[in-house]
Amino acid sequence: MQLSTIYTPVQEDLVKVEKELELVSKVDFSWLAELLSHSLSNGGKGIRPALTLLSGKFYHYNLNTLLPMATAVEVLHIATLVHDDAIDKSAVRRGKPTVYKVWGEDKAVLLGDYLFAKAGELTATTQNLRAVKLFAQTLRTISTGELAQSFSAFTLEQTYEQYIQRNSYKTAALFTLATESGSVLSEAPEASIKILNEYGYNLGIAFQIVDDILDFVGTEEELGKPTGSDLVQGTLTLPAMLLLECFPEDNPVKKIFQNEDKDKNVKLAIEMVRNSPIVEECYRIASDYCTKACCNLNLLPDNDSRQAMIELAKYVVRRKR
Amino acid sequence: MQLSTIYTPVQEDLVKVEKELELVSKVDFSWLAELLSHSLSNGGKGIRPALTLLSGKFYHYNLNTLLPMATAVEVLHIATLVHDDAIDKSAVRRGKPTVYKVWGEDKAVLLGDYLFAKAGELTATTQNLRAVKLFAQTLRTISTGELAQSFSAFTLEQTYEQYIQRNSYKTAALFTLATESGSVLSEAPEASIKILNEYGYNLGIAFQIVDDILDFVGTEEELGKPTGSDLVQGTLTLPAMLLLECFPEDNPVKKIFQNEDKDKNVKLAIEMVRNSPIVEECYRIASDYCTKACCNLNLLPDNDSRQAMIELAKYVVRRKR
Repeated sequence: MQLSTIYTPVQEDLVKVEKELELVSKVDFSWLAELLSHSLSNGGKGIRPALTLLSGKFYHYNLNTLLPMATAVEVLHIATLVHDDAIDKSAVRRGKPTVYKVWGEDKAVLLGDYLFAKAGELTATTQNLRAVKLFAQTLRTISTGELAQSFSAFTLEQTYEQYIQRNSYKTAALFTLATESGSVLSEAPEASIKILNEYGYNLGIAFQIVDDILDFVGTEEELGKPTGSDLVQGTLTLPAMLLLECFPEDNPVKKIFQNEDKDKNVKLAIEMVRNSPIVEECYRIASDYCTKACCNLNLLPDNDSRQAMIELAKYVVRRKR
Repeated sequence: MQLSTIYTPVQEDLVKVEKELELVSKVDFSWLAELLSHSLSNGGKGIRPALTLLSGKFYHYNLNTLLPMATAVEVLHIATLVHDDAIDKSAVRRGKPTVYKVWGEDKAVLLGDYLFAKAGELTATTQNLRAVKLFAQTLRTISTGELAQSFSAFTLEQTYEQYIQRNSYKTAALFTLATESGSVLSEAPEASIKILNEYGYNLGIAFQIVDDILDFVGTEEELGKPTGSDLVQGTLTLPAMLLLECFPEDNPVKKIFQNEDKDKNVKLAIEMVRNSPIVEECYRIASDYCTKACCNLNLLPDNDSRQAMIELAKYVVRRKR
């Protein structure tokens, strides 16, 4: 199923989120408007705002709060990308030059800060303190995850548990914010909030595992950025961990992390992962998380959003970008 | 009067703010705890948290909300410094190596993000939506000011109004957050909130002007960082603007901004400013802002905090670091 078909129950309101994002760029200073419009019109998949809206569909769907919250979730996501690109010195994202590349590191850092603030303001307009707290906690969790990744860069000794924890911090936290805030703002009972929180968490972990797989098996055109970026940055992801397990002695990942013939070894590692059962194994793990994500959805009211969330979980594993 | 004497009405509670800051560093990950404790124990003057507490003294002084707010204001301040140092590639602040210098740019960016989030969480514990909104708006204003400074770097054509606006964004906004949040949380009437807001704004502008003067007339020991940093960064401050006015032709500031013999010309510009009436003129302008800051304080209830705020305004102009 196409993403746009999955989004059907909230498609109209996702268009409104797009409009809200455009409004964020409407500021007095032209230099700022340009930066904002470049970063906000980034051709993202819109999964996170869709999750907020879908999660809001089970009880009192109130667009006055759900719309700014869904927008805040997307703005927060974009802010983290802007900072990530500055830190990783990435030139391209989604086929477009990054803010870092066009305007330099200092502008990227400050624009990210601006967007964090804007996301916070949007969250505050919900007038819901629980959503506000969740928002701030999530930003702290994401930063912790990114710091963990930075501190563990080029380190071979990492456990599967550490990998999952990092993913839960740097990716699943934002998915959880999306679903939990949607349910909180629609006045869902606590049991339902918990189900949607767990859906977001597990979907987020699956999403990141698939991201990590695509960094090995995707094409530059599909990804909108170079393949093998994680290895170049020294980020040890699941496919690389499994490759190390399969070939503990002479292994290109080891050499990359020791800065030996980087280009050649990145290509070799990608080749080896592609020609091994590792990809399948990673997809199996991602699928397990998606199954876990959906296992309690049947306890929620039966509506088209519930079905959409099940389809979305399938999409997350199937996606090519 | 010593700063510690001025702080007398809130001295005990400022110690509690210090304790709260220490608690922020108490986290599970040792690598994060180290980063946090390095950045949070920075020997700052504590003016901003003091302003929140002093502003809270006029009506219902409730430490349950004022303490986290005062801490949030200081954490936000420190977060902006951590990012500033990364952007300016500053090695030293307050006589100590910066996070940027010790851990590198990526850690500094992510730590700043973490601290923004922590400050947001602290603000949210006040359970006061107005304070939360004010907080997010302030972060956005500060980022806008920093972006404005970055976009105008090494530009000679800047007006006095642009200079004041930049100061109002990058510095006075945080002073205003400090005083306004203190008054809001102590349930001050709107008229009093306005007076304290204006006090914060004018004090903040004065503070920044004095900062800009000290960058010319201070010593490295007093400042805890090299003199002339603003010129090196291409930031046109009031003393430099007045120097350009006095010597429109052959001027070292012009040469610095054209990257001509930077070291020599920075020294020359400092020398020329010191040996001119510019310093006095800048101090006069800063003093005017301090006078403006205090002019309506007499409409507030008469207490020792009011006197402390008047003394603080005098201190801001008198300070050497």
